[in-house]
Amino acid sequence: MSWKGFTKAVNRAGTSILQSAGAIEKTTDCEFEEEERRFRSLEAKVTRLHKEAKGYLDALRAMSLAQTRMGATIEGYYDMSSPLQACATSYKTTIEQIDEELRNNTDVAYRTTVLDPLGRFALYFPDYNEAIKKRNNKLLDYDAVRSKHRKMVEKPLDDPTRLPRAEDEVLEAKRVYESLNIPLKEELPQLIGLRVPYLEPSFEALLKIQYAHCREAVDRLAAIQPAFQAAGLDAKSPEAADRMLEGAVEDVLAHMRELSICAP
Amino acid sequence: MSWKGFTKAVNRAGTSILQSAGAIEKTTDCEFEEEERRFRSLEAKVTRLHKEAKGYLDALRAMSLAQTRMGATIEGYYDMSSPLQACATSYKTTIEQIDEELRNNTDVAYRTTVLDPLGRFALYFPDYNEAIKKRNNKLLDYDAVRSKHRKMVEKPLDDPTRLPRAEDEVLEAKRVYESLNIPLKEELPQLIGLRVPYLEPSFEALLKIQYAHCREAVDRLAAIQPAFQAAGLDAKSPEAADRMLEGAVEDVLAHMRELSICAP
Repeated sequence: MSWKGFTKAVNRAGTSILQSAGAIEKTTDCEFEEEERRFRSLEAKVTRLHKEAKGYLDALRAMSLAQTRMGATIEGYYDMSSPLQACATSYKTTIEQIDEELRNNTDVAYRTTVLDPLGRFALYFPDYNEAIKKRNNKLLDYDAVRSKHRKMVEKPLDDPTRLPRAEDEVLEAKRVYESLNIPLKEELPQLIGLRVPYLEPSFEALLKIQYAHCREAVDRLAAIQPAFQAAGLDAKSPEAADRMLEGAVEDVLAHMRELSICAP
Repeated sequence: MSWKGFTKAVNRAGTSILQSAGAIEKTTDCEFEEEERRFRSLEAKVTRLHKEAKGYLDALRAMSLAQTRMGATIEGYYDMSSPLQACATSYKTTIEQIDEELRNNTDVAYRTTVLDPLGRFALYFPDYNEAIKKRNNKLLDYDAVRSKHRKMVEKPLDDPTRLPRAEDEVLEAKRVYESLNIPLKEELPQLIGLRVPYLEPSFEALLKIQYAHCREAVDRLAAIQPAFQAAGLDAKSPEAADRMLEGAVEDVLAHMRELSICAP
């Protein structure tokens, strides 16, 4: 910050404190304040949505990676002697294909249609924030010269040229303040109005992408089921597999208990 | 470790060092060593699979949570005035239902049929490891007394009672060692043989659970598409949505560029 910038900041902080104490009158523009409140709400929502959309992509990638790792380990679990080896290999290949599809299609489509638009939208906020900050500063300057002018009116000075000069200062400060306040009041609602059309295609794309990714997984997993059935793996549902497993696990555990080493 | 245990450990370490130096003959049981090698391989695979299966469930939960969070934020993004608010609400509800299904069904089925059996299988390894360690210690004891006996035969002592006593010690040490070595050689292949039937239902259940979870997501996402189409969101594929979005984003960005605040 330059020396000039520093003295300005100190003067504005002084004005702000005097306003809080009621010593300097504060100009209030309810219309602007309402637009600013709506802008803050939009900024918070978009920032949060962008962060969460990024978190979702990361979580999706992590899930697919965990699945791929498990697929590779399952394949390594069976050796050539097992009739399930072919199943394990086709399971691994399927999981790899789903992961590849995720990395090559889902991931790219998601970034292009959901993540990047949110990111680009979020990039506009700093410009607006800068403009709002500048407008608030110019308003403090305006209120400060206005207060100075009022004091001169209430308690005239000896020098008769000071009042007209203060009047000019008030007019100039008002002009500067309004040159920022008026366009902001026009443009903030426009930005806020864009929020729905801007994210409409992203929202739609999100649904389509999630659907397409799950559909791909369903189709690929369904395609390897005949091989599992041929290998004698043929439960109709997780519940049936569960019941089957319960019996199988009990048999195996009973067998293990028979082994003298594990006996208590 | 007791004092007796400590001296035993020191003596065994001494025997092991002398064996490495070739000063004491080492008994080798190739059949046992092959079974131990296969056991170590199984232990590593099951431990890894158990860890990865746990990692997959964690990743799946994290992904669903990220999705649910994003759904809630999308709903909050639209207000009553937007025709998309109903879509956002039904999207959020759908994502919540998929998450609920994951927590109530997929999660439980996965733990019961995949994770818990792997965990229970892994729980047997410490017992076997303990038995193998004990067998190896008894083998070192046997080799030590055998070496002591051989030295007595090669260089007879004055006391004629010492040699028969050493012979008895050798026979006892051999009996103790074989009482562990023989059952282990029988039981390790049995444990290894169980690896395929034991995990067969888990493997099958994994495929069914993944299929059922994705199927659920596909059906639920498909069910809300008519509402999206009615609201005017109707791209046929992520690619089409992408193309549509490209145009929409460009329009909006052009509009933003028109706003003087963002002008360079």
